[in-house]
Amino acid sequence: MQPETKKLLTIVTEAVIEASLTADLKRLGAGGYTIVEARGSGSRGVRDAGWTTSGNIRVEVVCEPAVAARIADHLRENYYRDYAMILYLSDVSVLRPEKF
Amino acid sequence: MQPETKKLLTIVTEAVIEASLTADLKRLGAGGYTIVEARGSGSRGVRDAGWTTSGNIRVEVVCEPAVAARIADHLRENYYRDYAMILYLSDVSVLRPEKF
Amino acid sequence: MQPETKKLLTIVTEAVIEASLTADLKRLGAGGYTIVEARGSGSRGVRDAGWTTSGNIRVEVVCEPAVAARIADHLRENYYRDYAMILYLSDVSVLRPEKF
Repeated sequence: MQPETKKLLTIVTEAVIEASLTADLKRLGAGGYTIVEARGSGSRGVRDAGWTTSGNIRVEVVCEPAVAARIADHLRENYYRDYAMILYLSDVSVLRPEKF
Repeated sequence: MQPETKKLLTIVTEAVIEASLTADLKRLGAGGYTIVEARGSGSRGVRDAGWTTSGNIRVEVVCEPAVAARIADHLRENYYRDYAMILYLSDVSVLRPEKF
Repeated sequence: MQPETKKLLTIVTEAVIEASLTADLKRLGAGGYTIVEARGSGSRGVRDAGWTTSGNIRVEVVCEPAVAARIADHLRENYYRDYAMILYLSDVSVLRPEKF
């Protein structure tokens, strides 16, 4: 099994944009994504409302660094103004079988 | 977009302490948190019951290292004796738009 | 509190194999695991069906590197042919109280 170093991009945002966001991910080159239902609190971009709780999703994308950067730029330009969103990146080793 | 290196503190614990835990997080300086419903098994602190399955929550906090340390110390002192809990830290790059 | 460096193994796969997978994890030396319900899309191993959405689980195991390698090898040999699965590893610092 050969590990490959990839980026894990985690996006926590409002559930209301899920369909739009996942369509964007595919179009921008993500090979897949994982979504879990979440709730939480945080500051909300320019609509900062302090500590609030609402229906969120936590989305993970494992991808090349260039794809992560492209997705992050797109999200910033299209969602940050209007939706609560936090994005963070970490390094992961993806394990793939030889037959993949 | 300027990445900032932060700590990602992940806490997996019993759902019954959620309200108390999130109040603690705010008070100790967390700027936000994300909670997902979880289930799982593990050893349970001093009440070690071996492999058990119950209603858990998985809580993530992205914060400065000093805040992560303060939260970890607080949880150790207040919850480890009585509740199943695992805490782990990793490094993440948080992507923020310039206008934040 | 002494941090210990461990591996965080994340497995995203089909919910239908949960019972079998968790039995394997225990047998292969995992001290615990955390499961969350997930959904998502991706390519599906040798049954590649492109972008599909189905009931998934996201499983995390914090363990020693050797245990992570043993689990990864086992999953490759037993599940990759027939089930959609992605595995990735990262480094985490696990915080344990002195009294553990």
